[in-house]
Amino acid sequence: MSTIIELAIFPTDKGESVSPFVARSLRIIKDSGLDYELNPMGTCIEGEFKQVLDVVDRCFAALEPDCDRIYLTLKADYRKGPPGRLKGKVASVQEKL
Amino acid sequence: MSTIIELAIFPTDKGESVSPFVARSLRIIKDSGLDYELNPMGTCIEGEFKQVLDVVDRCFAALEPDCDRIYLTLKADYRKGPPGRLKGKVASVQEKL
Amino acid sequence: MSTIIELAIFPTDKGESVSPFVARSLRIIKDSGLDYELNPMGTCIEGEFKQVLDVVDRCFAALEPDCDRIYLTLKADYRKGPPGRLKGKVASVQEKL
Amino acid sequence: MSTIIELAIFPTDKGESVSPFVARSLRIIKDSGLDYELNPMGTCIEGEFKQVLDVVDRCFAALEPDCDRIYLTLKADYRKGPPGRLKGKVASVQEKL
Repeated sequence: MSTIIELAIFPTDKGESVSPFVARSLRIIKDSGLDYELNPMGTCIEGEFKQVLDVVDRCFAALEPDCDRIYLTLKADYRKGPPGRLKGKVASVQEKL
Repeated sequence: MSTIIELAIFPTDKGESVSPFVARSLRIIKDSGLDYELNPMGTCIEGEFKQVLDVVDRCFAALEPDCDRIYLTLKADYRKGPPGRLKGKVASVQEKL
Repeated sequence: MSTIIELAIFPTDKGESVSPFVARSLRIIKDSGLDYELNPMGTCIEGEFKQVLDVVDRCFAALEPDCDRIYLTLKADYRKGPPGRLKGKVASVQEKL
Repeated sequence: MSTIIELAIFPTDKGESVSPFVARSLRIIKDSGLDYELNPMGTCIEGEFKQVLDVVDRCFAALEPDCDRIYLTLKADYRKGPPGRLKGKVASVQEKL
């Protein structure tokens, strides 16, 4: 089984530059051991549904202590079948171009 | 503390009519006891972050057994302060019109 | 034909209270004459695809002059068939509960 | 000025494999001449707001003739300042790790 989520999470009470806060989440994602890919609008993470949801929970917990307002957007794509879809989905589209 | 999420979750392998699957999630949201509001594009739910994430997990678990592909979109807005924001946020905008 | 979008658009360089900016967009949506519904996480608008996209463009134009950073999230659901789905989609789920 | 959008658009009435339809959009994005990056959950595109919205419109128009139901998710991040942020945003986070 494979769930890919794309997560963007950032405070909205810290002015317009939020990359230090985004870096906090990225460190947690990296430490999770799950496959991930950072892009300009979020980070894609692949795992079992509960695993990726747990990462989301930890990213929130890393911001909550010093942020008064936090915005989060998440998309998820679950597909019954083998993992390895971070690379696979992109390849599948590109070969049809 | 108050987190409002808006959740949309549906299978993409069941053709274009998915309201029976959306109803499954709504039942779970209702049974959670959290404040919620169904709208044409998703359901807003208010609670503590872990509480709303737990509801998301249960909605996914209700679809996973008979759906081969599931899509989910989620937005969250966390604000330090009192709950009651499902009504409060809408009122705050409308009084500024 | 019917496209429903849900739009959320707000500056992220103005601190955590952004309802005056959200009210600007709501006024534009109201003046468009399209069917709409404000909810705690965005505003649903129904129309032809080009019509709703044009409203998004005008909402952005209303923030751009005095906002240095703007975030926007949008979901759209297009369905071949008659309009009137702002009420119809919610009713279709509720009758299956 | 720089707007980055991330776009995902696909039919939900064609079963679970939709990469041929995603490829249609990617071809339009490519032909637009704007900077873009495909990722597992969408495509990031950078340009002026009206330019990127115009691309969205054309992607929809490429699916509408033979799709009865279409779902679209979009995030946008506008920032007053120079373009080149597809690479810049990712670098800015990575150097803070």
